[in-house]
Amino acid sequence: MPHLKLSYFDFHGGRAEPARLALSVGGVAFEDHRFAFPEFAEVRKSTPLGQVPVLYVDGVAVTQCDAINRYVGKLAGLYPVDPYQALLCDEVMCVVEEASVRLGPTFHMAGEEQKAARLELVNGAMPKYLAWLQMQLIAHGGEYFSDSRLTVADLKVFVDVRGLNSGRLDHVPADLVEKVAPVLNAHMKRIAQLPSVVAYYAKFDQN
Amino acid sequence: MPHLKLSYFDFHGGRAEPARLALSVGGVAFEDHRFAFPEFAEVRKSTPLGQVPVLYVDGVAVTQCDAINRYVGKLAGLYPVDPYQALLCDEVMCVVEEASVRLGPTFHMAGEEQKAARLELVNGAMPKYLAWLQMQLIAHGGEYFSDSRLTVADLKVFVDVRGLNSGRLDHVPADLVEKVAPVLNAHMKRIAQLPSVVAYYAKFDQN
Repeated sequence: MPHLKLSYFDFHGGRAEPARLALSVGGVAFEDHRFAFPEFAEVRKSTPLGQVPVLYVDGVAVTQCDAINRYVGKLAGLYPVDPYQALLCDEVMCVVEEASVRLGPTFHMAGEEQKAARLELVNGAMPKYLAWLQMQLIAHGGEYFSDSRLTVADLKVFVDVRGLNSGRLDHVPADLVEKVAPVLNAHMKRIAQLPSVVAYYAKFDQN
Repeated sequence: MPHLKLSYFDFHGGRAEPARLALSVGGVAFEDHRFAFPEFAEVRKSTPLGQVPVLYVDGVAVTQCDAINRYVGKLAGLYPVDPYQALLCDEVMCVVEEASVRLGPTFHMAGEEQKAARLELVNGAMPKYLAWLQMQLIAHGGEYFSDSRLTVADLKVFVDVRGLNSGRLDHVPADLVEKVAPVLNAHMKRIAQLPSVVAYYAKFDQN
């Protein structure tokens, strides 16, 4: 197994959290490098395209979160071997990423501009993405998104839905997912209760 | 092998072209469903999230171009089996997609607004992405992006660079890639001359 160092903001969310979870759930050792938001300006000077997360594989810096999720998913046994199941897993990760990219610019807005942009998403794209994800989940048995077992797609959706529910996103109602896609919300709660996920977060509470 | 139908706009570019090329280069049979731009409004009524390309796998509609590229890449023998090489392949595809997403909104602009938006990219993000891609290419031997052989990453970059060079993108100089990343431009020309790629496009000229 290569030496892995995953570098990202120090919070339980965002674009590195699915990979952190996958590595932890799969019992793969890695250096969990975290930095505070104000440190980003300095950190990005040495990262590919100025971006995070970065996964250092035996010292080689690799960026792009879904490339990372897929790679650590393979190492952790949380990525389908069957090409068709892998396709379904990838499709879900791509859709969540697309939705995140739509939301991204609003983090750099404030006041009425942010409110208008977020409400447009809340009343337009977000319910569509959530409904599609719920439809995919139901179409594949209702428990997991692909391969009839936990994969990185479940972890990515879990982190995304938990973030939407957090109430920390101004103008995004904390009950949006429950109203639009209750089966998806139930999936999030189920993933949160997996013993390996509970154990991962328990480590932070002990510190 | 499943029955494959790939549905996308009828031109030699965009988000389905790498998959069309991969399937053709790999000798995988597929239904190459193409529609004219004005038909899109009707086509999208029945596609997931109103998007194209769509790959129908034994009739099941799957969207998201990089998920499709990866799947057909596996079927065509153009995707690395080694997880680390697959990571490098994925990273390149993700970066090209990210650059495309940055360019996307400018297609819905006109006049001075489009000019300003495109010039901002031409003088900012685009050279950065191109330089990074060239750096990756050189770092892995200068011929291919991963696995020391042709993969879907090469095909995706090829389609992207060819599009930038086409002169059809207003305000994007047709010599931008040659000026910023000549090794990347040489890669594009080399891919274009692969016998399997030449044979693919020759079919259209015969029609």
